[in-house]
Amino acid sequence: MDLSEFELIGRIAARADGAARFETGIGDDAAVIRTAGRIVTSVDTAVAGVHFQADRPAAESARKAVAGAVSDLAAMGLGEGGTELLVALGAPSSTPDAYLEGLADGVVAAAAEFGAELAGGDVVSSPVVFLSVTVIAHVDDATPVVRRGGARPGDVVAVTGPVGGAAAGLALLEGLEVADLSDLSRELLIGCQTHPQPQLTAAPVLARAGATSMIDVSDGLAADLRHVAEASGTTVRLDPGTIPIVPGVPEVATALDRDPLVFAITGGEDYVLALTIPQDRFEAADSALIEATGFELLAIGAVQEPAGGDACLLVDGLGEIASGGHDHFRGPGAR
Amino acid sequence: MDLSEFELIGRIAARADGAARFETGIGDDAAVIRTAGRIVTSVDTAVAGVHFQADRPAAESARKAVAGAVSDLAAMGLGEGGTELLVALGAPSSTPDAYLEGLADGVVAAAAEFGAELAGGDVVSSPVVFLSVTVIAHVDDATPVVRRGGARPGDVVAVTGPVGGAAAGLALLEGLEVADLSDLSRELLIGCQTHPQPQLTAAPVLARAGATSMIDVSDGLAADLRHVAEASGTTVRLDPGTIPIVPGVPEVATALDRDPLVFAITGGEDYVLALTIPQDRFEAADSALIEATGFELLAIGAVQEPAGGDACLLVDGLGEIASGGHDHFRGPGAR
Repeated sequence: MDLSEFELIGRIAARADGAARFETGIGDDAAVIRTAGRIVTSVDTAVAGVHFQADRPAAESARKAVAGAVSDLAAMGLGEGGTELLVALGAPSSTPDAYLEGLADGVVAAAAEFGAELAGGDVVSSPVVFLSVTVIAHVDDATPVVRRGGARPGDVVAVTGPVGGAAAGLALLEGLEVADLSDLSRELLIGCQTHPQPQLTAAPVLARAGATSMIDVSDGLAADLRHVAEASGTTVRLDPGTIPIVPGVPEVATALDRDPLVFAITGGEDYVLALTIPQDRFEAADSALIEATGFELLAIGAVQEPAGGDACLLVDGLGEIASGGHDHFRGPGAR
Repeated sequence: MDLSEFELIGRIAARADGAARFETGIGDDAAVIRTAGRIVTSVDTAVAGVHFQADRPAAESARKAVAGAVSDLAAMGLGEGGTELLVALGAPSSTPDAYLEGLADGVVAAAAEFGAELAGGDVVSSPVVFLSVTVIAHVDDATPVVRRGGARPGDVVAVTGPVGGAAAGLALLEGLEVADLSDLSRELLIGCQTHPQPQLTAAPVLARAGATSMIDVSDGLAADLRHVAEASGTTVRLDPGTIPIVPGVPEVATALDRDPLVFAITGGEDYVLALTIPQDRFEAADSALIEATGFELLAIGAVQEPAGGDACLLVDGLGEIASGGHDHFRGPGAR
């Protein structure tokens, strides 16, 4: 690698568009940005070999890292625009320049795709490639922000799309052979893994429509709805027959000798939104979502009083799902 | 490691104090924080074996990572208080729980030491331990923010303390034997490397006193003042006889067969502030700094019109310092 830290930051800065709210952008010790009201901020990290495959195109991996970070804003009910990204990039000094440039290109393109501006960066030597992406969104007092803890007994539990695709795509990328899978299904599943779609259009629609709690499905539908149940002090009960699963996932799960439903709800990285909403607001929310995105809001269960006083996640037929989400840190398949 | 991601985040959250401006703190998809005016934000990353030694205490390494990040705020003229931290932590799944807890303790203690609140975190599996720390400070319109690009011909160039200590301490930690070095000097130099002191008390004093440009010395005094010269379109000229060097550094440099002055100004990680200030404001700034910190403001050179039209850094006796800073990414000693 011949590209120095300063050159790489300079390349990113040169391609990053400023915004009127920036008093100082990339290139000083810190960025200075005009704001008002509130900021919503989060950090998300992607490590090569853990969150993305080291042999995938660099720009795709960078986009995936940024997508995972902005998805946390969608989880709060926020959409595109008025968002800053700060990107810390680690890479071995032996990394080819073309790969580093691909990462830089991918970050800049992803910022544009998701309506965000680059406000800062840091490039460091590291034995492994990683991108740590901080997002900062600016929201005024009138903008509804949806948290995890607002689910109330009687609310409908819903998702904005099918799950299981990213986990199935990962298994395929890792070399799993599945005989009865069409080429189209295979491509679709791999796309779920490599090109996640943060729900930045759906999120503000659902926030305005009255979602009481919301989360992006990053750890797996089961683990993420358990977070909602615990934060809300309620029980979330799912009707397994209604949980939407990406086509081809059952075939992949079967090839792995896994139960298709359990595989789909514990896989992670789906980046659809899971939410709760009062029964009497569901229909209007569904209509608003269809109008904004073309996709239906899919009811998959109900919020109940906590069973025996303890918040939990119940799936009819499977009982209580105590764990088995996508823990980034341990266990088989930990990422 | 038996500690899961959720447990670790929970431990950090439990120890982190919220602040009145937090509407939502750690534990949701993102933090929601009331603000007004402007934010000043930056990200800084520390990788084990690169920015800190893997065999040092975990809490010390975490503190060093946070110190490096808040030092970027000092470089902008900001002090303690009203600052958020978001910390992304990578670690191998084989990391002992005690080390992870040490990192978490260190982050929480450092936040308290530097007057900051934890607003977010992310814990991921990684082959190497790293901490990526984002800082967000809130400043009103009346607070002066000092950038790199404001140096003007005639300004005095000054530093808030001596340089070279951190680089010398690193050489000692890496096993260098220096015969004519007292135990006290040795401890002091190692402390410069392991316990950097971001200048959060000095910074706002100097900003109010009229500093025209400022930078924290992280890449090395020479490289950082070259950044100031380039951003300001001026030449920065240093008088080598006035550059303060930490006691013991010349002995270490000599043992490494390096010129002591060149070693001291290219070493990096000193975290003193380097600044420019109009001649007629220097004395008042010096008095204000002594009153606030007990330390003098040390004049080391002057800002000049760019020689031949090109901004550069000149050191009398050494000529133009074209490069040789602490590039985080390449070259001998790249960190």
